[in-house]
Amino acid sequence: MLIVQKFGGSSVADADKVRRVAGIIADTYSEGHDVVVVLSAQGDTTDDLIAKAHEINENPSKREMDVLLSTGEQISIALVAMALEKIGLPVISLTGWQIEMSTNSSYGAARIKKIGAERLRRELDKRRIVIVAGFQGINKYDDITTLGRGGSDTSAVAIAAALHADSCQIFTDVEGVYTADPRKVEGALKLDAITYDEMLELASLGAQVLHNRSVEMAKRYGVNLEVLSSYVRKPGTKVKEVVKKVEQMKISGIAKDNNVASISVEGVPDEPGISFKVFRALAKAKINVDIILQSVERGGANDISFTVAKADLAAATNIMEDLMETIGFNKVTVDNTVAKVSIVGAGMVSASGIAALMFEALYDAKVNIKMISTSEIKISVLIDEEHVDAAVQAIHNKFFGD
Amino acid sequence: MLIVQKFGGSSVADADKVRRVAGIIADTYSEGHDVVVVLSAQGDTTDDLIAKAHEINENPSKREMDVLLSTGEQISIALVAMALEKIGLPVISLTGWQIEMSTNSSYGAARIKKIGAERLRRELDKRRIVIVAGFQGINKYDDITTLGRGGSDTSAVAIAAALHADSCQIFTDVEGVYTADPRKVEGALKLDAITYDEMLELASLGAQVLHNRSVEMAKRYGVNLEVLSSYVRKPGTKVKEVVKKVEQMKISGIAKDNNVASISVEGVPDEPGISFKVFRALAKAKINVDIILQSVERGGANDISFTVAKADLAAATNIMEDLMETIGFNKVTVDNTVAKVSIVGAGMVSASGIAALMFEALYDAKVNIKMISTSEIKISVLIDEEHVDAAVQAIHNKFFGD
Repeated sequence: MLIVQKFGGSSVADADKVRRVAGIIADTYSEGHDVVVVLSAQGDTTDDLIAKAHEINENPSKREMDVLLSTGEQISIALVAMALEKIGLPVISLTGWQIEMSTNSSYGAARIKKIGAERLRRELDKRRIVIVAGFQGINKYDDITTLGRGGSDTSAVAIAAALHADSCQIFTDVEGVYTADPRKVEGALKLDAITYDEMLELASLGAQVLHNRSVEMAKRYGVNLEVLSSYVRKPGTKVKEVVKKVEQMKISGIAKDNNVASISVEGVPDEPGISFKVFRALAKAKINVDIILQSVERGGANDISFTVAKADLAAATNIMEDLMETIGFNKVTVDNTVAKVSIVGAGMVSASGIAALMFEALYDAKVNIKMISTSEIKISVLIDEEHVDAAVQAIHNKFFGD
Repeated sequence: MLIVQKFGGSSVADADKVRRVAGIIADTYSEGHDVVVVLSAQGDTTDDLIAKAHEINENPSKREMDVLLSTGEQISIALVAMALEKIGLPVISLTGWQIEMSTNSSYGAARIKKIGAERLRRELDKRRIVIVAGFQGINKYDDITTLGRGGSDTSAVAIAAALHADSCQIFTDVEGVYTADPRKVEGALKLDAITYDEMLELASLGAQVLHNRSVEMAKRYGVNLEVLSSYVRKPGTKVKEVVKKVEQMKISGIAKDNNVASISVEGVPDEPGISFKVFRALAKAKINVDIILQSVERGGANDISFTVAKADLAAATNIMEDLMETIGFNKVTVDNTVAKVSIVGAGMVSASGIAALMFEALYDAKVNIKMISTSEIKISVLIDEEHVDAAVQAIHNKFFGD
């Protein structure tokens, strides 16, 4: 089998951890597999480099920032290669430009366009372990780019796709994907498998295991992902297109998001095009809107409520107040003491009673629901922030208890 | 004019120094010149990276070491570029592979083969200051190489040669090339100019201003070098083919070398081929021999004395003792309490009395001469190590006093 393994920055933070990672790689190689390893920069390296830059220029060009930051992964690949040399295994490290990781020119947030897999294949044909610098590529000018947040996960998936790898293993600090945050929710269960879509919903809802970009790419190219621990040698969670569940689990996971605030405008005239004007103004200001709720008409006027990220609350409120006169609202009210709780499950739409079960759990916990939003694989509710942990636990107990 | 400027690691060691270097570059650019800057890794970066590597593998492959070490210069170029961006100047940083600095495959000690000047020219045509990572290149496999000791100086000279630059300025901790080490010798004078050959002799004799490789390359391609200070804004020392001296200086400089030991073999049979056998054995063991002295024949036997680097003394002595029986010496004696003092000057061979003046100075200082060696532009003497500083001062006074 051809296996791509990705290790994050904390997994290679010091010499001991580098040796541990080398041990995992060596075991995989010794089982007869072809192995490509994708690495992030060691521990705090990226932060240290950013601090160095800002000491000289608090607003450097993104191009030069990428030249600087890409050294972090290059250090990691050399060190892990040296650790494998020490064990006596054939190994070679390669940078982003050496594997021809072609990206567009958005320095600091580049998108992968193509990978020239020739060099990778040539090294694998020599039965070498190939250690690749994640997070980095080159654009059409042969300038260094970085992929931005979640970049190394995305590099790993892109390489796995280019090489048609049998598996792409993402090693992290946790043992896999859980039904809820195991540090917060009693009884949280590790999932053996989860679909891409479920993973996408969970990631966007704040389960910070895999970055959405990498999951989207894995889904597009059918890359079999596995999330597992750098520290505990046991199977993690597989992420793939279709998951056959051993037991019929009703949902895959529960996530919460405290970074949310709600805005309500009251007394909106019941005329065509009003909603369009409201949300076009927000889109122009690049403010993402999540849940939207429009109340039933009352006396020729509507109420519109929606949620935004807490950081966008002030800007969104200003925009609404500016629109008050031109559109003719009565009132704009805001609430930043809310939180969102969501349940995710691929089979949700066909399984009746899932929503009822969730609402029952909240009722039992005496948690009031302010807004509701549903999709094919997700139900989200907006509640008071102070009740969020109790709500998650109550829902978890309802679905996974006993 | 097109000027190449090279700054060493101590010149870019921290944010303040990076800003100072940026100031020098900005001034040169503002005078209307095209500027290419070549940088070394910051301060202790290279040592820190080597320590990181050795913590994991005390004997890593040279290939992976080069992947690791080349990050040091890449950090420097990004930071200096950012400092110039901060002043508002157009600037771009380029790595060794981006300027197609082609080398052979001797990782850790690669030789430059060719520079693809296209990218450099394209950026200069845009009136950009170009900041290049010194010390690094790529081989025919597109793998990263480093040039070894003196590598950044050599990079700068190679780039100056490829671009037919008008001047290659090497910025250092000292203000130029002196008649003797200014920290040790009272009255040491800064030279306005010196020939390539004189500089080569001084460099090989331990005046650690410019590495020999860079001077040899400058001589071969006729690159006008200038050695000057990163800290004091005044002219340094020019290194070129022919130097018109304002005053007729008899010699250019005095150098000492404490890293030397002498070996004498006594009672060597006076037969053809004996010297050949002795020095072939040393050459096989890659031991460099410097001064060689063969005494006049006495009763059918000679004495042969020669000097080697202190580090090679034990190995060289073993080789001589092995040869004792086969060749038939009487005795091998060693002395590692010696030092070499040399005077260098391009016009030496034609100026009679230079040697006499040197020997007179040593006689005045009551320093005994053990061996003498001369070349077209150099006279070296071997003396007791304990007298070396007094000898250099006495010679300096004789040639440069008043």
